[in-house]
Amino acid sequence: MIYLDNAATTKPSDAAVQAIIQAAEAFGNPSSLHGLGLEAEKLVEGARKTIASKLGADAKGLLFTSGGTEANNTAVFGAARAKRKIGKRVITSKIEHPSVLEAFKQLEKDGYNVIYIGTDSDGRVNLNELKSSLTDDTTLVSIMHVNNETGVIQPVNEIKKLIAENAQNAVFHCDCVQSFGKLDVRNIGADLITISAHKIHGFKGTGALYVRDFRLIKPLLYGGEQQREMRPGTENVGGILAFAAAAEETSGDNSYLLSLRKRLADRLSEDKNIKFNGSDEYNSGSILNVSFVGIKAEILLHAAEARGVYVSTGSACSSHKPQPSHVLTAMGLSAKEIGGAVRISLDPTTTEDEIDEAARILIEEARNIRRYM
Amino acid sequence: MIYLDNAATTKPSDAAVQAIIQAAEAFGNPSSLHGLGLEAEKLVEGARKTIASKLGADAKGLLFTSGGTEANNTAVFGAARAKRKIGKRVITSKIEHPSVLEAFKQLEKDGYNVIYIGTDSDGRVNLNELKSSLTDDTTLVSIMHVNNETGVIQPVNEIKKLIAENAQNAVFHCDCVQSFGKLDVRNIGADLITISAHKIHGFKGTGALYVRDFRLIKPLLYGGEQQREMRPGTENVGGILAFAAAAEETSGDNSYLLSLRKRLADRLSEDKNIKFNGSDEYNSGSILNVSFVGIKAEILLHAAEARGVYVSTGSACSSHKPQPSHVLTAMGLSAKEIGGAVRISLDPTTTEDEIDEAARILIEEARNIRRYM
Repeated sequence: MIYLDNAATTKPSDAAVQAIIQAAEAFGNPSSLHGLGLEAEKLVEGARKTIASKLGADAKGLLFTSGGTEANNTAVFGAARAKRKIGKRVITSKIEHPSVLEAFKQLEKDGYNVIYIGTDSDGRVNLNELKSSLTDDTTLVSIMHVNNETGVIQPVNEIKKLIAENAQNAVFHCDCVQSFGKLDVRNIGADLITISAHKIHGFKGTGALYVRDFRLIKPLLYGGEQQREMRPGTENVGGILAFAAAAEETSGDNSYLLSLRKRLADRLSEDKNIKFNGSDEYNSGSILNVSFVGIKAEILLHAAEARGVYVSTGSACSSHKPQPSHVLTAMGLSAKEIGGAVRISLDPTTTEDEIDEAARILIEEARNIRRYM
Repeated sequence: MIYLDNAATTKPSDAAVQAIIQAAEAFGNPSSLHGLGLEAEKLVEGARKTIASKLGADAKGLLFTSGGTEANNTAVFGAARAKRKIGKRVITSKIEHPSVLEAFKQLEKDGYNVIYIGTDSDGRVNLNELKSSLTDDTTLVSIMHVNNETGVIQPVNEIKKLIAENAQNAVFHCDCVQSFGKLDVRNIGADLITISAHKIHGFKGTGALYVRDFRLIKPLLYGGEQQREMRPGTENVGGILAFAAAAEETSGDNSYLLSLRKRLADRLSEDKNIKFNGSDEYNSGSILNVSFVGIKAEILLHAAEARGVYVSTGSACSSHKPQPSHVLTAMGLSAKEIGGAVRISLDPTTTEDEIDEAARILIEEARNIRRYM
């Protein structure tokens, strides 16, 4: 098996599995006053520090959530509602993850004025469009770090600067689910940052939202006193410990990923009917999005799978929807290019041999499919 | 160690641990179109059926959540918002879990008319009070099955009947976190039911909300297509499989728990300065709430812990708050009785020897504390 769908999810690492087993022994409720509770609480707070240090952030601001979706929803709804008195103008991009986009669509239904910024053909958010949309009554800007379909790095530092200069009341949220652990995310300067465990060899069901200042958001959940009442509910101790164990194994250095991605693109270039999507210059290295023009990507996906190569069409969380990718649409690709687009997502554990073999199989299968079309 | 804080959390069972390890191998994203994704999806859907069958409910209506708090919030906010056009009158009891009560407090801030039903001195919700509060424009009634501080079983069948007769537009939500697995919950007849994994030897971070008809609620989270878009986000596959494994080991027969509880009460009755709180007739058997009158419960808790006996004062999720128990307050207990109240919570794995030993230690330590007061 050559697993190249790491943007959808990754295999929990041995350290993550050990951590979750440890949590089954240190099973106290972190809120309990007795020693078993304190032991669990200590472990959770240690994990919070480990993960926060990878963000270059204060552990106090890190709220554990059930994953990226909850963290993104908490950021979007939380900031919009916290600043409702200042205004109802909020900004995002057309290429965000559904857990950001669908939250903004709900805000629209609630009477918010939502502006969706487009991208250039290379998949980067258009900064001029953003600049001219920023106003004093803009309360929220949510733009991701690395796009989950193309791997394109968004100009977050420039975005941060534009917000500071043109929208002093706006909270800046950055979805770092696809960059955390792969790139250095310590200098983004966002007020709110979303991360997820299962993209970096932790378990599904755990994520976190970093909140620079709790006054910037309203909670999404209400209940007990956990996590300073900003995210109540008994902590997912096992998932949190596994998240920290996985985060500890990340380097934040993407040079190997970039070399793998280049190697893969070189190999695939043998096929003259393909088109690479998204910026090469600004790429995390973790994703190669490539259109096998004229082929239905889903057919290629299954043909490759029959030979042990796992790739995807677009993102997993909308894979059952027959809609064309909103990301590639925003980038101005043709219907044919979008229909043939395959997302190949790499991981630090991916080997060069796997890249070569996967490229060979994809080219062969694409050739076969074209022959019988 | 004699662990008698099972209402706060339980130790994951071997089967639950094995299930979470299995999930680390079947690591595909359930939304992925390839075989790894389908394998994970199949496992999740199998778990959904296992758990739904324990509820006597249709698996289609079971939404996995991050725990009881999210499930309770989804029920309360979801039903109130879905029925907003019909009315803003909603009802709960004074003895609900904070994840229900705090959600209702938020609804109050949003202009809802919230009625908090009181209890009799035995800790059961007052049905006359409820009956006279039910109206045609009541849209939600949220009353728990088993109280988490006293173990008292609420008259859910009578409540269901009163709602059907007097508030035809009301959704009935029942928090079954403390009853699921311990009592037979298949005939409650609630529209919405909350359950949690870590109270029945699953892992923290997984719960579920059963929803009889998705038109009854609005989702709390927005994003991908998972769980019919009613609860998006990549499923916590490990936690879900562990939840099902734990649920399979439950019997729903509380006769052993009731015998343990009676034994414990008999042993503790040696101490003549104690008062048992809450109905004996209507009790799950899983909790004995007892006031060591004149003693500060926290001191007794730590003294018992030093001798290996783990009990709690009230619920874990508000243990760090210095407020008196809202449950015991609603039951009309005096400040002294509340201050000395200890929650001893049992489990099917608890032995009679543990009960005897714990009772002996609690009586001795209470005597010691009284001596030095």
